[in-house]
Amino acid sequence: MSKPIHITSPSNPLLKDVRRAVARGSLTADGLLVAETFHLLEEALRSKLPVPAVLAAAGARSAVENHVRGLNSVRVLVIADSLLQELSGTETAQGVIALVRPPEWKLENLFGGVPLVVVLDGVQDPGNAGAVVRAAEAFGATGIVFLKGSVSPFNAKTIRASAGSLFRLPFVSGVDTELVKALLRQRKLRVYAADPLGEVALAQADLRSPAALIVGSEGHGVSSTFRQGSQTLQIPTRGVESLNAAQAAAVLLYEASRQRILTTDN
Amino acid sequence: MSKPIHITSPSNPLLKDVRRAVARGSLTADGLLVAETFHLLEEALRSKLPVPAVLAAAGARSAVENHVRGLNSVRVLVIADSLLQELSGTETAQGVIALVRPPEWKLENLFGGVPLVVVLDGVQDPGNAGAVVRAAEAFGATGIVFLKGSVSPFNAKTIRASAGSLFRLPFVSGVDTELVKALLRQRKLRVYAADPLGEVALAQADLRSPAALIVGSEGHGVSSTFRQGSQTLQIPTRGVESLNAAQAAAVLLYEASRQRILTTDN
Repeated sequence: MSKPIHITSPSNPLLKDVRRAVARGSLTADGLLVAETFHLLEEALRSKLPVPAVLAAAGARSAVENHVRGLNSVRVLVIADSLLQELSGTETAQGVIALVRPPEWKLENLFGGVPLVVVLDGVQDPGNAGAVVRAAEAFGATGIVFLKGSVSPFNAKTIRASAGSLFRLPFVSGVDTELVKALLRQRKLRVYAADPLGEVALAQADLRSPAALIVGSEGHGVSSTFRQGSQTLQIPTRGVESLNAAQAAAVLLYEASRQRILTTDN
Repeated sequence: MSKPIHITSPSNPLLKDVRRAVARGSLTADGLLVAETFHLLEEALRSKLPVPAVLAAAGARSAVENHVRGLNSVRVLVIADSLLQELSGTETAQGVIALVRPPEWKLENLFGGVPLVVVLDGVQDPGNAGAVVRAAEAFGATGIVFLKGSVSPFNAKTIRASAGSLFRLPFVSGVDTELVKALLRQRKLRVYAADPLGEVALAQADLRSPAALIVGSEGHGVSSTFRQGSQTLQIPTRGVESLNAAQAAAVLLYEASRQRILTTDN
């Protein structure tokens, strides 16, 4: 790390930029993502992503410095504890906000190996979206699409809930539904739309072949555009109307992983 | 419903009581739980639980009255929109807060049929705990235990995340770990502690027999007390350190349900 810089003015341009990014759930003007917690800082460094700057609360300065020791490209910017807490999207900030250059993926990067692509179709809750990314990586998905109308992958809450998976799993965002539909067809993926009243029971679906799993919002489900031409896939449940979207996605992904592991074993 | 009552003072004792319950994540002094949203009001009525009172924001009064028409035991209390918003734990309240008499369960109620009991061991996040309850009902668990040291089932956020499942699935809370451990042993349940580094891979576990699934906090996992004498159960994943606790629980429960359905089919 280079020599720490102290920022004292709340109207410092960088702080204003970070504040705006957190409020809007977007990247900073410089195209950096806002990663809170020491865990995310570690994950960003482990993923070899550029981390041009780390904001450190005065009280957490030495802990932050320990994390970036020997990394000359990382600037540490020390600010008052209260200023950092005010920037933070969490109730009790850990005193660290890393600014991370996100990886740049193209749509074709999402189809590695035997493709298993997750498509978020209108998922608005950043906690749910991030948790889906985490489960997608965990169960071997090859990529994830945030369709237009879904929350941004760069929302600080999405990043936090992904627990670092957004630094590794290929993703694209803000893409048009028709474009993605056409691409999945062209690539010959089976397209399954998650639906509590779906026609195919999960265990009967073939998830060993190249497949896409479309996850809709809890309120509205998968959009009619995607429903057309897809098979609707149902997780057998009783008593409840539906599952939480992140849990439903985790179950679909687990089943895909289970089927694929069994295939490999045989 | 009886004739609506208007409350105008923010220091009305009932409002103060509700405010305190929301802040503490507990029942009201009268032992009622705080259920926000129209969906939860519907679920409470459908579950035949007593609903002695419903707070309605002035702007949502007719919608609330439509929900409780013909139910003489339900008092509707109309308050200013701003007062209801201030009571609410959500950013944009729907204008309704039902006060619901929770069901009373005993530990033995959790062991119906072939028992599948979920034990929350230190789960602090109310959203996660509620989502686990929802998945537990969905996948046929027979009951759920909130051990001492876990969030309260009566926290308004737990109730909301359970999406009504807390009105139906047998549960007990605030119970001592040793007591529950002894009871599971006495009832001859296989005890599986969820653990990212566990010794048994999920698909190899026998979840058709009477079983308990112990779910720990994301930070600390299952307590050492419960780890002793349990088999640790691992969800095969790659890349990530662990899954979100609610997603992990959903996957364990799905697998149990899958195994049990296959058994029934054969």
